[in-house]
Order: sequence, then C-alpha cells, then structure tokens
Amino acid sequence: MLSTVTIVGVGLIGGSFGLALKRRGLVEHVIGAGRSRASLERALELGAIDEIADGLHEAVERSCFVFLAAPTIAICRIVEELASTVPESTIVTDAGSTKRLIVDAAERCWRDTVMFVGSHPIAGSEKSGVLHAKPDLFDGKVVAITPTDRTSREAIQKVTDVWRALGAATLEIGPENHDRILARTSHVPHVIASLLVALVHGIDGEAARMLAGTGLRDSTRLAESSPEMWRDICLTNSINIRGALEQLRGLLDQAAEHLDAGDEEKLFELFHEMMRYRRELFGDARDTNE
Amino acid sequence: MLSTVTIVGVGLIGGSFGLALKRRGLVEHVIGAGRSRASLERALELGAIDEIADGLHEAVERSCFVFLAAPTIAICRIVEELASTVPESTIVTDAGSTKRLIVDAAERCWRDTVMFVGSHPIAGSEKSGVLHAKPDLFDGKVVAITPTDRTSREAIQKVTDVWRALGAATLEIGPENHDRILARTSHVPHVIASLLVALVHGIDGEAARMLAGTGLRDSTRLAESSPEMWRDICLTNSINIRGALEQLRGLLDQAAEHLDAGDEEKLFELFHEMMRYRRELFGDARDTNE
Repeated sequence: MLSTVTIVGVGLIGGSFGLALKRRGLVEHVIGAGRSRASLERALELGAIDEIADGLHEAVERSCFVFLAAPTIAICRIVEELASTVPESTIVTDAGSTKRLIVDAAERCWRDTVMFVGSHPIAGSEKSGVLHAKPDLFDGKVVAITPTDRTSREAIQKVTDVWRALGAATLEIGPENHDRILARTSHVPHVIASLLVALVHGIDGEAARMLAGTGLRDSTRLAESSPEMWRDICLTNSINIRGALEQLRGLLDQAAEHLDAGDEEKLFELFHEMMRYRRELFGDARDTNE
Repeated sequence: MLSTVTIVGVGLIGGSFGLALKRRGLVEHVIGAGRSRASLERALELGAIDEIADGLHEAVERSCFVFLAAPTIAICRIVEELASTVPESTIVTDAGSTKRLIVDAAERCWRDTVMFVGSHPIAGSEKSGVLHAKPDLFDGKVVAITPTDRTSREAIQKVTDVWRALGAATLEIGPENHDRILARTSHVPHVIASLLVALVHGIDGEAARMLAGTGLRDSTRLAESSPEMWRDICLTNSINIRGALEQLRGLLDQAAEHLDAGDEEKLFELFHEMMRYRRELFGDARDTNE
C-alpha cells in the first residue's frame, strides 16, 4: 500500500497507472503533474488522479513514490530537476521507452545509492492520451525493470511489487541490453512502418486506398503512434537503432539477391523459417487480437 | 445465375468462393478440382463444392465459369493447359496475387478474343486452407479486375457481376499497373515482415519473447502467410518488388541520415507526415480490427 504517489504526465500510460493503483486500492492519494492543464483536468474527472499539483517539487516532497510518464527526453530533464528536491526515501520510476539515457541521468544526479529505477511497461498502443487510459492496461503485460549496480535494492523491490500488483510480469534487464533489444523488437519496426507508408505515398491515392488490404493496415499500424514520442525514441537510442537498421539493410540486400537470381529455394526458405520463428515467438497469442 | 462452375484449388479463397456462390444461390452446381484430395474432400463436407472432379478437362468442359484459385505459378500452368479444352463461351478468371504473367499466359493461349480476365480479391489473410473459408470473405472487400485490349467485354462484365454479387467492390486496372501498385501495398510489406522477424531472430529467445509487444506482433503478422504463396509472388513480380525494395532502401538511408545527424525536426516530420497519410489511407477503418 502506497500513501501518496505523484504521476508526472497523465497520458495513456500515466493515466492508466493512476486508474490501476486506485481501482486496486493500492494507493491513498494520487497527485497529477504535467504540462497539459487540459489532460490533468480530464485525468481528475476520470478519477486517475485525486489532485492537480501546484508545483512539481511541492508534490514530490509529499510523495513516497513518483512515476514519470512523460516523453523520454522530458523524463531525462525531470530526473535532473527532481534529484535535488526529492525526499531521500522516495522511490522514483518512469515509463520511458528507452532506458540508458534516463538511467544515466539518474546516476549522475543521485549521490551514492540511487532511489530511481527505470521501468518500461510494454503496453503501448498507437493510441495516446488520458481518454484511452484504462485500469487494466498493464494486466498480463510485461514490464522491463532496468537497475544497475548502484540502484537501491529497496527501490527495485518496491517498483517490482507495484507492477506485479497491477497484474504485470516483470523482467529485470540492464538498460544497455534493454535498449539494444528494444531497437529490434520495437523501434526499427516502428521506423519501418512509417517508411512503408512513405512507399505507398507516391502512388495514386484512390488506387492505393482501394488496393490496400488488411496486411498493409497491420504492418503500418505503428505509424499512427505519437510522432513526438517516436522522435524522442530515435534521438535517445540512435546507436542501437542505427545498428539494427544496418542489419536490416543487409537482410534486405540478401532478399534482393534471391529475387534477382529468381532463387525459389532461398525465397521459400526465408519465408518458411521466419513463419516458424514467428510462431515460436508469439505462440497462440497471435490469434487473440484477430 | 451460373449453371456449373469449376473451382481449381479449394483453399481459403477457392473454398470461400464456392461457399459464397452457394450461400447466395448464385450457382446450380460447383465442381472442385485440385491437387489435394484431402482439401477437396473437406470442401465437399463443408458444402463449398458439390462434386470432386474426375479430371480437370472433363470438369471444365461442363462449366460456364472457371475460377482458378491455385498459387500464382500453378495458375499460369493451368491457364496454358486449359486453353485448348475450355468451351469457347466459358469464362475463366483467377485469384492470383500477381497478374501480368497470368494474363500474358492467357493472351498467348487464347486466339483472338480472350475469355480469361484476371481477378485479384484483396481478401487474403495469414490463414490458409479450406477450414478457414467463409461465405462472407469477399463481402465489403475490393477485387481488382485486370483486363487488356484483347479481353472479351462479356467476360469482364460477367466476372465483375459475379464479384459484385458476392458483396465485393471491383476496380478495373491493367495487369502491369496492378503489379506495380501491389508490390508497394502488399508484396514489399510482406517481405519486410519476414525480415523484421529475422532481425529479432538473432537475440536471446526468452528476452525477445518477453519484450515483444503488440507492435511487433502487428508489424510481423504477414510473416505467417503461406511461404509457397509468397515465393510465387516474389518470382512472378520480381521486377516491381525489386524496384520498391530499392526505393525503400533509399528511404531507409534517409532515415539513417536523420538519425546520425540527430535531426529532431526531420525525424518528427517523417513520423508526423506518415501518421497523417496513414489516416488518410485507412480512415476510420483502422479501428475496426482492434
């Protein structure tokens, strides 16, 4: 049970976090902070928060737990701002999609034991905003928790407990490793979704519209996510994304070679192996959304 | 109303065509032909066909309408085989995903007026097989109809009428144009879905599984489609696919440049524009599947 929690950024993730804590009776009081007055007011109406902060520092001083659910670059800045005012025992976590820069900022700002531990709930959507928030958003989802050698054990434990209490499974993984893997499981697929839309952009609108099937719809859905969020992800994980794009380019060149050679076997093998591996990856879950 | 129809290949598409014709009372008798005895027997049980053909030629001789729903390369071969035995007034169409090679084969084989007109129902799925067939598969979908100067007007009209009677909207488009557009709206997105799976294939299985969200699931769903079908599509539309892959490579290089330069504005612009264009492309339909 948490006493007072401050949520910075009450969009889809921050709003859902507030709703989830309250719906499960895990918190006494939730303060919302953030740039958008309109979002804060909507969050208050929806019951995701109990109070709108007068100021960030004042709110954080009253809180035992702080959740930063702003865009990645804003989180880095807020971590730096908070470090001087946050009470020594207050635990801080976040929901940023990339972790190394955020964790680095925390390690620079906290002396000795760091009461910040990074979180990344794998529960995004192309939808955004508090109006899409829901109390069961994290239920059955995975949350990556990204401690380092300097992270307080107490912070790791508390943050893990909170996510599990919200129905999520947690995976402890270093921030570097997290960013390297997410570049491949999330960031490059997003960049590619936008590029696939660009590829269709050039062709006659009406024909494209009529000839675009559910395949294109699925493979480009990610392109509807918040452009601000994805710009930040690219800027804060550029090295890993570049590496993965380079690898994708190599795979693309190889596929092009098979095409040029009209190599039936190699083409079949590529599609067949990847079909099998995708099944391994998603198992039966693949059908739940259809 | 059609008297006797032969369907060659009773998988998802052929089976659904039979079910749809029969459910709507548009046909008197449906003969099924194809390589797989097991599929034909299942199609008979499900009521997608009324009879299993003894031989392709004998079935086609009794039919006023023939629907070829085999893989693309097999369709080319069947068109060549049929041309000599099909009755003069029998109309032939197909469901191949690429059109130029199939239409070329028909034009080579029919003398003067060609009673074959290409169709491509944009109604695929990563599922395949007659067990997934359903009578409303084409309802509300688009079917591309790909005539040339030499195609019989009667054939175009009849094929158009049949698809519309099954609830589909039709789009008349030349086979070259069809293949050029589909390379971008369907074929390259599919190749990329497989390559995105390959990109994840290298990383630790358990972490990949846990950190793969719905984004990756959506963007790689196409990779579960039939490898045979996609090998054939690649082989029969390689020039257009190569062209589109080359263009994608250019877009990828450009995105990589923005990443290297840490160009916030260009990255935002890319994501923002493609978000807007995707909304234009899919409108409100984007939410129906979620």
